[in-house]
Amino acid sequence: MADNQGENGPSPLGSTLTDVTALRAEHERLCAEGLKLDLTRGKPAPDQLDLSTALLDLPGAAGFRAADGTDTRNYGGLQGLPELRAVWSEVLGIPAAQLITGGNSSLALMHDSVVAALLNGTTDGPAWAGQRIKFLCPVPGYDRHFAICEQFGIEMIPVAMDDNGPDVAEVKRLVAEDAQIKGMWCVPKYSNPTGVSYSAEVVAELASMPAAAPDFRLFWDNAYAVHHLTDTEVEIADVLRLAAEAGHPDRPFVYASTSKITLAGSGVSFFGGSEANVQWLLAHLSKRTIGPDKINELRHVRFLPDAKSVAEHMRRHREIIQPKFDLVLSILDTELGAVDGVSWTKPEGGYFISLDVPDGTAKRVVELAGQAGVKLTPAGATFPLGDDPRDRNIRLAPTFPKIEEVEAATRALAVCVRLAVSESAA
Amino acid sequence: MADNQGENGPSPLGSTLTDVTALRAEHERLCAEGLKLDLTRGKPAPDQLDLSTALLDLPGAAGFRAADGTDTRNYGGLQGLPELRAVWSEVLGIPAAQLITGGNSSLALMHDSVVAALLNGTTDGPAWAGQRIKFLCPVPGYDRHFAICEQFGIEMIPVAMDDNGPDVAEVKRLVAEDAQIKGMWCVPKYSNPTGVSYSAEVVAELASMPAAAPDFRLFWDNAYAVHHLTDTEVEIADVLRLAAEAGHPDRPFVYASTSKITLAGSGVSFFGGSEANVQWLLAHLSKRTIGPDKINELRHVRFLPDAKSVAEHMRRHREIIQPKFDLVLSILDTELGAVDGVSWTKPEGGYFISLDVPDGTAKRVVELAGQAGVKLTPAGATFPLGDDPRDRNIRLAPTFPKIEEVEAATRALAVCVRLAVSESAA
Repeated sequence: MADNQGENGPSPLGSTLTDVTALRAEHERLCAEGLKLDLTRGKPAPDQLDLSTALLDLPGAAGFRAADGTDTRNYGGLQGLPELRAVWSEVLGIPAAQLITGGNSSLALMHDSVVAALLNGTTDGPAWAGQRIKFLCPVPGYDRHFAICEQFGIEMIPVAMDDNGPDVAEVKRLVAEDAQIKGMWCVPKYSNPTGVSYSAEVVAELASMPAAAPDFRLFWDNAYAVHHLTDTEVEIADVLRLAAEAGHPDRPFVYASTSKITLAGSGVSFFGGSEANVQWLLAHLSKRTIGPDKINELRHVRFLPDAKSVAEHMRRHREIIQPKFDLVLSILDTELGAVDGVSWTKPEGGYFISLDVPDGTAKRVVELAGQAGVKLTPAGATFPLGDDPRDRNIRLAPTFPKIEEVEAATRALAVCVRLAVSESAA
Repeated sequence: MADNQGENGPSPLGSTLTDVTALRAEHERLCAEGLKLDLTRGKPAPDQLDLSTALLDLPGAAGFRAADGTDTRNYGGLQGLPELRAVWSEVLGIPAAQLITGGNSSLALMHDSVVAALLNGTTDGPAWAGQRIKFLCPVPGYDRHFAICEQFGIEMIPVAMDDNGPDVAEVKRLVAEDAQIKGMWCVPKYSNPTGVSYSAEVVAELASMPAAAPDFRLFWDNAYAVHHLTDTEVEIADVLRLAAEAGHPDRPFVYASTSKITLAGSGVSFFGGSEANVQWLLAHLSKRTIGPDKINELRHVRFLPDAKSVAEHMRRHREIIQPKFDLVLSILDTELGAVDGVSWTKPEGGYFISLDVPDGTAKRVVELAGQAGVKLTPAGATFPLGDDPRDRNIRLAPTFPKIEEVEAATRALAVCVRLAVSESAA
């Protein structure tokens, strides 16, 4: 996950880097081309969705019975179909009894966990509403995590990411001394957007560190649990086991979903936690709904009946998206490898490449790209309140566009980076 | 919707009513039969669910495009598929632009509306959390409405139901004078459990009455909008139009779902409101999810493409469940028609019959029925905090069991009522 800075020799374009005039002309040519390209969101491409075509006519007219005979068409079953939890227990390494299934969005389960803590408190403390509450936010991170905090007036404290995860010394210091820190957002594997996976040491520290707040929670968004891009299939440490062993069984709230496995809008989601946390969340959910969409759960069991089939399915995803990542990385290497202050991540999984440009130029890069018809995630989006204090991080999402669009967009992006850097040096 | 009291002549069983000994023997015989019957929840029967078998292999492999070309498999579309909103706009009499679709549970939309008001306030006022908040609760009413209030510490004020809806004079008096009253639960058509539909006058009064709280909201749960049991297909007044005309456009939050139309666990739900309320709820939902399950929405459009097909489909439901209601009513009439202090509703739609027994005997009836293997909704469930001050109301849900089970359960229930009445007179 090391960035590339310093790995490359001088680029053939290095000499023209400061030639603002030439770069402006190149940028104007791009603007005239009328490109309409989009690298903004981590969406699966249509051919990835095609991998799950079988779901579209499942379960079929005769097949609505669950393994235990339950009529999945009717109400009930708040915790989710046992056979679905069994499959994903194996995939996620969490006992089925400690899993709850949700609707088509794990973000919704995260949101609802925060709501439950705000309005009714956790197993370890009273309602957060009315208290001053803070969350630690490793940066760069996921904008939708930060948006939940913003919505509910939760103060966000950025913590830097390094190659092993968040700066754990800083996290420990903050959590030990400030009882207002009640939560921390974590994408522990193939993190959004850096691609970093948390080292075993970092996971162990987060699970066991002393916390001033007894109701401190890790919001463990394992969004990319099986989303490998290389043969190095990263495994992360078992946060639930480590937390339980350290005497903090209720600290981790684990989340996952099939949104980027089956169908992005019609998947199933999961909450994993201690048995006490499972009961806590079920108590909250029981006031909200009579149960999840069990037919969709049955579809998923029929389509992906075991961990092996999930792994096989994910290999097909990788075949589609790895070439897009490789292409972006190769173009960045060629076009920007010699540009001082520009670096990027080489993810082994997940959906993003995190590009750092020289301080103070990210917004300008995004603006220039927009003018050239290449939509990028707004600069700053990967920071709380959209504020990247160094204005340098840009998140690239290469999965959705066609590979020729990925190429055109990345080449255009490279021109915009070089132009912005040249402008700022001028 | 008038109850039956006084409509019937003396029953042949009237003479044995106070014969506790004979009734005890009859009850013991029932207990020995080992019945396992359940009249508790308003669940569709399997043959009702069979009416929607076509949904189980929709949309089919080739058909995931929405009318506007949207790939329904992917993320997005927070407000819901336009063509689904168009169909249900016609059914519900609400402009499509003023509808939001949700997941498989309208209860979840109600819950989330309360959560949004608690944590972020409404279009007319600040967050409710931290304030003392009260809701009006017409009684008997729906236990899951009351459970949301209980969960969040919202004080519930019962208001009596009459044949035209809630006691509107009392509602007006309370709402005009108490600014802590922020909400009122309403099931305006074929109310749960009384079957009462709100008269045009009641709807107009609720929509236009002065409220001390500017952010007072009607939680208008139109759960049984098309769930007729007779040829008298009740239409209720248009609360959104009346409220807008009265200068309170944001007062009604309207809810509906297909849970008792298509598949109870796998339907779609709807929120209807002013354009300001639609924007308000979308802003909240946008922090929670990237969009609803559009494939399930597409299934529903393909299966029920217009209001006419919905009406036709509901006639098939009626064919299945009306005989069950007729049977219960007929048995109650024969067995309990002459028992003083016992009355029940004759619903023209919806899912319930509301049975009133003499004061202080409802819990005993439910207990006796349980002993005889007939599960009834706990006495008191139709009141806030499960507390029926007169201990007299029992909710009967005849849809789910087979008709012979409905018969056996109702006959057993009648014995239990007569025994409980006899005991209390003894």
